[in-house]
Order: sequence, then structure tokens, then C-alpha cells
Amino acid sequence: MIARTPEKFEETGIRVRLHTPVDEIDTRAGEVRLAGGERLPYDTLVVATGAAAVTPAVEGVDHAGVFVLRNLRDAQDIKAYIREKGCRKALIVGAGFIAMEMSEGLAAIGVETEIVYRGKLPVRRWDPEFGTMVLSELERHHVSFLPERDLEGIERGADGRLRMHTSGGTLEGDIIVLALGVRPDTNMARQAGCALGETGAVGVDEHLRTSQEGVYAVGDCCEAFDRVAGRWVHVSMGDVANKQGRIAGRNIAGMAASFPGIVGAQSFKIFDLELGATGLDEERARGAGFDPASTIVWGSPIAGSLNIEKKKLGLKLVADTRTGRLLGAQAIGHGGAVGRINALSACLWAGMTLEDVAFMDLAYAPPFGGAWDLVHIGAQVLQKKLT
Amino acid sequence: MIARTPEKFEETGIRVRLHTPVDEIDTRAGEVRLAGGERLPYDTLVVATGAAAVTPAVEGVDHAGVFVLRNLRDAQDIKAYIREKGCRKALIVGAGFIAMEMSEGLAAIGVETEIVYRGKLPVRRWDPEFGTMVLSELERHHVSFLPERDLEGIERGADGRLRMHTSGGTLEGDIIVLALGVRPDTNMARQAGCALGETGAVGVDEHLRTSQEGVYAVGDCCEAFDRVAGRWVHVSMGDVANKQGRIAGRNIAGMAASFPGIVGAQSFKIFDLELGATGLDEERARGAGFDPASTIVWGSPIAGSLNIEKKKLGLKLVADTRTGRLLGAQAIGHGGAVGRINALSACLWAGMTLEDVAFMDLAYAPPFGGAWDLVHIGAQVLQKKLT
Repeated sequence: MIARTPEKFEETGIRVRLHTPVDEIDTRAGEVRLAGGERLPYDTLVVATGAAAVTPAVEGVDHAGVFVLRNLRDAQDIKAYIREKGCRKALIVGAGFIAMEMSEGLAAIGVETEIVYRGKLPVRRWDPEFGTMVLSELERHHVSFLPERDLEGIERGADGRLRMHTSGGTLEGDIIVLALGVRPDTNMARQAGCALGETGAVGVDEHLRTSQEGVYAVGDCCEAFDRVAGRWVHVSMGDVANKQGRIAGRNIAGMAASFPGIVGAQSFKIFDLELGATGLDEERARGAGFDPASTIVWGSPIAGSLNIEKKKLGLKLVADTRTGRLLGAQAIGHGGAVGRINALSACLWAGMTLEDVAFMDLAYAPPFGGAWDLVHIGAQVLQKKLT
Repeated sequence: MIARTPEKFEETGIRVRLHTPVDEIDTRAGEVRLAGGERLPYDTLVVATGAAAVTPAVEGVDHAGVFVLRNLRDAQDIKAYIREKGCRKALIVGAGFIAMEMSEGLAAIGVETEIVYRGKLPVRRWDPEFGTMVLSELERHHVSFLPERDLEGIERGADGRLRMHTSGGTLEGDIIVLALGVRPDTNMARQAGCALGETGAVGVDEHLRTSQEGVYAVGDCCEAFDRVAGRWVHVSMGDVANKQGRIAGRNIAGMAASFPGIVGAQSFKIFDLELGATGLDEERARGAGFDPASTIVWGSPIAGSLNIEKKKLGLKLVADTRTGRLLGAQAIGHGGAVGRINALSACLWAGMTLEDVAFMDLAYAPPFGGAWDLVHIGAQVLQKKLT
């Protein structure tokens, strides 16, 4: 556990034991057995073991200079390695938001960066039209994107540089970052006898209780209820973890509190580009039993008359053909994307239909959008498609 | 009527007659009588006469160099006057969002500006804490704000400059802008026998039909239903007018369509500061029969760790003590205010309670906010206050 201010906890009588691995949880005895053999009794246990970065099953991922990016320590290690070895060239494997943020970070310190990805376009959660815009933003900032390449192995060359073998040839770099997503770290929970959900993460109820009496789970190791899909999912988001932690804490303290679930809102920044997404894409909508239709509309993040830089804003909406219910949204733009996604997340939270959204009252002023916001335009265009 | 592209209408067979005053509407004959005596028969008539700028009942408001700011023509006239007369000093009367935007526009072309206001702080719709922040922003950009002064009269001095007499002394300027709000222009509608609502604006139903058969009204001349207050109100907003126009048009074309009303969302920019508001403040909430409580929370528009410029974001929430229902919100900040107000407008649109808002899933990423967004913090703080 890394706590920046353990003293703060200590002041309130909470004891923080860092660098203290747990060997075993004995739920019958109500004890946690520490690595050194010490036993800690508990009334209530919270499993907050987080997620582990996915490491591909290929040769050479354990070479020095090959990193994953999961926690603060990873970031510190990467920075130290770049500084000590004088790295000039980085290879990133993966093209999700962590890979994107990493490429911006590396570019900011002058490290030449190539992104290697098995798919065609970055940011798979977003529509290919938006992935293409991300690609332009990467190119504009001199980050290379090498699509359709599988990672096959890593070795260290005679010259000391790392060599990455891919299905599209061999690349060289001074440092490699693997950004291939995460999986819930459920070792401890399983060992305690907590049942896992269908997603493979720890199953919890709305109070964050696991199947094991007296044991709660919160954060990236456990599931969350997706209000749009109507099913339990595994997401790995800091804000969700925070909320779950607070709800579990209230329950443990004897206060009634339920975690109301998620709609899957997410955002990130890559250079000057904002991306946001919420709810379901078509594939996940179909998986959840809906009959989705979608539309993409392009406009301006501010009133057209003020948009002298010709900044673009793209919005994709997904809705259920049968009911008109809004199911999801994606946005991209040089500004303005995340605000729209937050408004649409509130619409998803409330279970609104396109009809509800199409004439919704938003705070219009030319510096922030048109009199018809792209949210209205998208909802009206998609409404027409459904009828 | 000012239409920038009358040709576009003509192409579709719509005849546009500019600079054509209407003398009388004869609803029995179904005719509009034009100033020259010509009669135009109609099946359906849309009254879209807008609002008129409020002019105070004092001496001298008709002097050359004294302007109101209502339409494009006013703006053009103001620009021409400043250019031709070489104006160096402007006086603005009023401190609403038009006055604020005007002061920024004048500062941008190097005209020294003083705002004269009868109240203590600018932007009355917003909490005094936020008004104080606006005041700092004005000062930072060298716009003077003279509070608690009533306008008593205007005259032209012997030197040709305008002299404004106020309850706090006499001021001099080259140009004066009166930004004292608007009132619905209902002359034509009343003359046609359309009933006015309690607000003094033209009464309409959800289809934008007035009390007079075959006569619709849309935009700033008519009322809109406030979904939060549960009553008809008069607002004067371009986006609301656009929506009403579309709904009226659909009805006239034989399509079923209802205007779902408003929640009173509004925003504007003053220099680098964003302001947004939606729903009711305490006073209007009480007027609508609620028992309001409120809180103000201050935070950061982006994650604190990234906020090296120490930008601030303030959020005020108003909710009903009895039901916990969210009633209104105000936000101010160097960025981030309008996005929050739009998300909260969607919450108002759906009739959410503080409990719904407090753990709502928003698109968290450090460039756009904290893991606990100020929206969550505000809702939780106000929830505690209510219990």
C-alpha cells in the first residue's frame, strides 16, 4: 500500500502498515495472517487489492527497461529509468487511454515515441471516426502509430538497446511501456473464499459486501452494477473506486448506504484533444439485449461565429430502436467533449430517452456552444433515424 | 426583421419581407394589415416580436450616443458610433450578463469602461460570493464598477461629452450603454387579442398556441413553462426561442410536437471567467412553494495536483428541504463552470434528488476534475445539511 500521508491516518487512530504483505486470510478465525507470521484479528475486512496490469505471455517482458503503468511507483520507476539511462526512444504497446496519456507524457520530455497496436486505430472504445481524429493528433505531435502489429517478443540487443519483435517487423527502443489494460487482482479475495462474478472480478452487492460474511471489496478488484446494461461489469476507474470506498465505509460504520452503480463515464486528454464516453457502444448494447441505432454528428465546441480556429467537436449517440432510450455517447474535440459527456451521463443516470434529450435546456452562450447544442442535434438526428 | 440570408428562404418558396411594419392584425378576417395599407391573408400567424430593451424613465436617454443592446443593428450602431466619434470612455448602466459581455467587448477595443449599478454586486442571479469573484475579474481587467448608484438623468455637456447624473454623483463618458434587461414586446399580440400570462408575456400552451385561434407565439415575446418551479415564466434566451420556433413550426405543419419547457439554464463568459446557472435560487424556490436550503462549495476545475495556476471553481446548489429534490445550481470559475451546470441541468430536467446526484457517474480524468467532482461534493455537503 502506498499512502502519501500515513501520519494523517495515525492522527485519527487508524494504524497504517505499509510494505506489509498478507499471506493468508482466515475468515473462520477472523484473522489476517501477515508474511512474518503475525496474526491480525478483524471484525470487518475490506479487500481493496486493485487490479494488476496485463502482461503479455511473450519472451522478454521481464527485461530491465520494460514497464507496465499501474501505480505511482511504476511512474516513478519509469521516470528514473529514462533519466538514468538517457532514453531517447520509447515504444508503447497498446492504444487505450493509458497508452495515449503516456505518449503525451513522453513527448513532453522530448522522448521520441512509437505506439505499437494490434488493431487499426487507437482508442477502441471510441468510434473509428474518432479514432482517426486521435491518430491525426498523435501525428501532429510526432508520435508514430504502428497499427496491426502483434507483440511477439522482446530482447536486448548487443548494443544494449531493447528490440521488440512484432508481426510487422522488429523495432528498437530504449524503454518499452506495456499498456495492455488491467485485470482485477482477486488472489486475496479468492483465498478468503469470496465468490467472483461473471466478469472475473470479486462479486459484491450494493453495500459492497462480498459473499463472505464480514468481508467487503471495493475498487478495481470488484464489480460494479452498470445501470444502462442492467448487469454487473468490471471497470477500472479511480472515481468509481472512491465512491465504492465511501459506501463500504458507511456500511461498516453502521450507516445505511447503497452504491447506485455506474453508467461507464470516462474521459481523457491527449495533447489538445478531449475525449469522453459514457454508457454503451452498439456492441455492448446488443450484448445487453438492446437493439441499438447510432449516429455521429460533427459541429463546433463553441458557436460557429466565434470558432475562428475551426475547432471541431464530434458526438456519437447510441439509442435503443424499440424504446428510444439513450444508451451511450462518445465525444471528441479540441475542447467541449467532456462537458457534453457529463450532461449525457446525467441523462443516462436518469434513464432518459432521445425525446427527453432533444429539447433539454442547456446553458447556451456563444463561447460554449450553439443555440442548438450538438447534444440536441445528435438526439434529433438519431430520433429521425429511429422513426 | 433582420434576416441575414433572405435568399435562402426565397429559394424554398418562403417570401421574406424585410422593413415591413405591421399596422394591425385582424383575426376575424384572418389578415395582417401592413403599414402601407396592403392586406396579407393568413391561415396561421406566428407572433415572434421578441423583447424590447428596458429604457429607464429619466431625462436624456434619447441623446445621440446613448444605446441599448438588443439586436444586431444595435451592435452595429454602437461600433459605428465608437469608430466615428473616437470614443475613449464608456458608461454601462446595469450589471447583468449583457452588461458584463459589453464591458469585455469594450475593453477588447481599448475603450475605458465604467459600470454603474443600483445594486452592490454584479450578476444578481448569482450568489454574492460569486458576484464578488466577478468584481475581481472586472478589476483585473481595469473595468470600474460603481455600485449603489441610481441613474437620474443624462445630458450632453458644453464640451460635447455625455454627462450621467446618478445618486452617487455625475460621471462623464463618450458613449452610454443601457443594459437594464428586457420586457416582452407584446403590442402586436395584444392587438390580435392574444391573452397575456401572469408574467406579462404572451400566454401559450405546450404547442405554442396563443389564446387566439390560428395564432402562435414563440421566443422572447411569450412565456415558457419552468419545469422546476412548475409555473409559466418569461425568460429571454436565444436557445429557448429556437426550440419554441421549431415546435411551433412542427405543429403548424401538422406534426404532433410539444415544447417540454425549460429549467432556466444560462451561461456567459466575462474575460477569463465562466458563469453558469440553472434552476431556481432560494428566493424563486420559496416563491414556487419549496423550502430551500443551499450550500456553496469551492474546489478546482481540474484535479488539484494539476492546478498549478490555482484556478478556482465555485458551485452553489439549492435543494428542497422536505424532499431533497435538486432545485437549482450556480457555478463560477476560470473554466469548468458551464460543463457542471449542463450536467446539473440534465439532473433538473429529470427531477433528480441530491441523493441521485451525490454518487452520479461523471467522466473523471485529472485534466477535467477530481475523482470526487465538485458536483458530488456539493450534493453530499447539502445532503448533510438537510438531515
